[in-house]
Amino acid sequence: MAKRADFEALDRADELAAFRAQFELPDNLVYLDGNSLGALPRSARERVAHVVAQEWGHGLIRSWDQADWIGLPLRAGEKVARLIGAAPGQVVVADSTSVNLYKVLSVALAARGERRLVIAEGTGFPTDLYMAQGLIAQLGQGHELVLVGRGTGELEAALAKRASEAAAVLLTHVDYRSGHMHDMAGITRLAHDAGALIVWDLAHSAGAMPVELDSCDADFAVGCGYKFLNGGPGAPAFVYVARRLQEGQVQPLTGWMGHANPFAFESGYEAAAGIARFLCGTPAILAMSALDSALDVMLEAPMEAIRRKSMALGVKFVSLVGEECGGHGLKLASPVDPQLRGSQISYSHPRSHTIMDALIARGVIGDCREPDILRFGFAPLYNRYVDVWDAVVALRAALS
Amino acid sequence: MAKRADFEALDRADELAAFRAQFELPDNLVYLDGNSLGALPRSARERVAHVVAQEWGHGLIRSWDQADWIGLPLRAGEKVARLIGAAPGQVVVADSTSVNLYKVLSVALAARGERRLVIAEGTGFPTDLYMAQGLIAQLGQGHELVLVGRGTGELEAALAKRASEAAAVLLTHVDYRSGHMHDMAGITRLAHDAGALIVWDLAHSAGAMPVELDSCDADFAVGCGYKFLNGGPGAPAFVYVARRLQEGQVQPLTGWMGHANPFAFESGYEAAAGIARFLCGTPAILAMSALDSALDVMLEAPMEAIRRKSMALGVKFVSLVGEECGGHGLKLASPVDPQLRGSQISYSHPRSHTIMDALIARGVIGDCREPDILRFGFAPLYNRYVDVWDAVVALRAALS
Repeated sequence: MAKRADFEALDRADELAAFRAQFELPDNLVYLDGNSLGALPRSARERVAHVVAQEWGHGLIRSWDQADWIGLPLRAGEKVARLIGAAPGQVVVADSTSVNLYKVLSVALAARGERRLVIAEGTGFPTDLYMAQGLIAQLGQGHELVLVGRGTGELEAALAKRASEAAAVLLTHVDYRSGHMHDMAGITRLAHDAGALIVWDLAHSAGAMPVELDSCDADFAVGCGYKFLNGGPGAPAFVYVARRLQEGQVQPLTGWMGHANPFAFESGYEAAAGIARFLCGTPAILAMSALDSALDVMLEAPMEAIRRKSMALGVKFVSLVGEECGGHGLKLASPVDPQLRGSQISYSHPRSHTIMDALIARGVIGDCREPDILRFGFAPLYNRYVDVWDAVVALRAALS
Repeated sequence: MAKRADFEALDRADELAAFRAQFELPDNLVYLDGNSLGALPRSARERVAHVVAQEWGHGLIRSWDQADWIGLPLRAGEKVARLIGAAPGQVVVADSTSVNLYKVLSVALAARGERRLVIAEGTGFPTDLYMAQGLIAQLGQGHELVLVGRGTGELEAALAKRASEAAAVLLTHVDYRSGHMHDMAGITRLAHDAGALIVWDLAHSAGAMPVELDSCDADFAVGCGYKFLNGGPGAPAFVYVARRLQEGQVQPLTGWMGHANPFAFESGYEAAAGIARFLCGTPAILAMSALDSALDVMLEAPMEAIRRKSMALGVKFVSLVGEECGGHGLKLASPVDPQLRGSQISYSHPRSHTIMDALIARGVIGDCREPDILRFGFAPLYNRYVDVWDAVVALRAALS
């Protein structure tokens, strides 16, 4: 029979336990929604205060140089790069995930010439699908967006059947509902075999597990800064473009930050060399500074340790829910195999919203996703094993 | 013979004098670069600290509802609307100026069907031209970007000669180099008479003078939050779309925030009604909160008083430079008539950079723009008449 003391013991033995003190978390709250909005790193609070009062208030315009605001999108990008297996010069932080997706999908379609097929998953993150739809409608070149099921073999079938047409494959690495994680290397190879380029959405991956974009031979990736990267609400997003694809097509959002000579004020656009051409307008320095600071916290932790603890928290959660919450109709909506899961556990239940409301009233925050999903995210830098215990105790009470 | 006491007297009589105390400005600095990065409002510093510590740190994901983060782009948009003569429901705050320009220019070109001509000014803000070039290249429909001179009659000639082709006119209301201000009503009428839609860039207008988009019958406008609006470095930008143009073409950056049901997680994009469809991805809450707070400060001041003081500061500056800095080769690069100027005074000088460096060393911050422009911005909410005096004294010394 499990008891809280067992979980306390796990926390004492946790190699990442000390990281929790770097976050400012409310007392008496079990926060299992870091996959939706990561918690506040103490250093990010301090950094933002410094940027506002000193860099903006005192430095004023001089801070573009003196505080190197102008270099922030590239500097922060290199920090993200280390978290997602990207060699230097392939990642920038800029804009939103949606806008970045638009940039790389534009480049992918332009690079694939007469091919007109875009394959994505119907269960993919909605805004990704919307952006693809918007681009396709705008281009008016007869591109077709085909939505396939996830893990159903439909992707493989579509790539096999329509290999000559496939321009791009757009996939979320970790599904936001189920937490199912794709085999990035295998699927990338499959897309390439069909002649398509691949775009990975890493929204639920970056900071939660090792990602190896370079060694998987990925083409493009995007992801957001405010989930496991703890960059704050609406933190700027990142975009990865494999070096081999940077010098070809120019992405269409050709703003001044992506210009070869941004301060020459020339009237003609000339794309910067390398990844900088994926920048567009003036970066939101306050928001990006918070993210930049949060990335430093994450880079202190070995990614293997993060993944190890993430999986352990998930395994404990599933096991404890099984022991304590049987007979209430909860169905595991995440893969059974922890190797196939991201850093979340999902259950389906017809009364998901009522249950989540009751949980939140008991001081446990997860969230719901349509139609019937209860989602619990595990952020190994600040979630504890006792959070698992406390959450399941509250869940049992909420179900009763 | 002018003396500093005269300027001190003007400050004592200044109806806006009390506003300076709402800003945090470094001691012993004359800041005449608020047209590049506005100063820090005390309330913005406090608001950001609150958003970080309380809304993010304590409220966490709950703040999307409880702090109405989700409504922030529209709420802040309505504040901007009051500054630019827009009735409710026509402005949102989102993304960067460049990205917003892309959205509205896309809609303008789509709405104008077979017309293929885009007219802009060669002296226009470079990123605006770059975005137009990027869009045109991407569409591949044979649109042509014609660059005309400013105030040379070329715009009028182009509109007259190629009226049947003109799709869109893209103009900066106040020129970033010279500070020359266009007749918005007159040029809008001219564009409409030719059958073209007009896009106004208000980067150097919003917050600096009365702007009357609705009564000028403007179609689209964009502008940035970090100049006269004091929203902080890289603050989110705004976009105005006249109500009559909102329900037609859908802008191509169809992200989840612009969806009719953003939380339904549907796989097909359905544009929200009204101006909300010009939103795209998740808003940068920290940056947008600073801007939102700065807008409140500005809305306390009557815009007519702002314009009155702005013009008076400029007139005093030009007059004092004339008295004190003759014989050094400075040439006024701004219009002589204050009614035709925005809230800046520019001079050309072959050694502009050397002079500005010397000025900055003396504690007076303006900036340079290519090729030879010295730029001095006047922000009536925090610049004083003695700033004019002190700046000119320093300029005289710098020239010597």
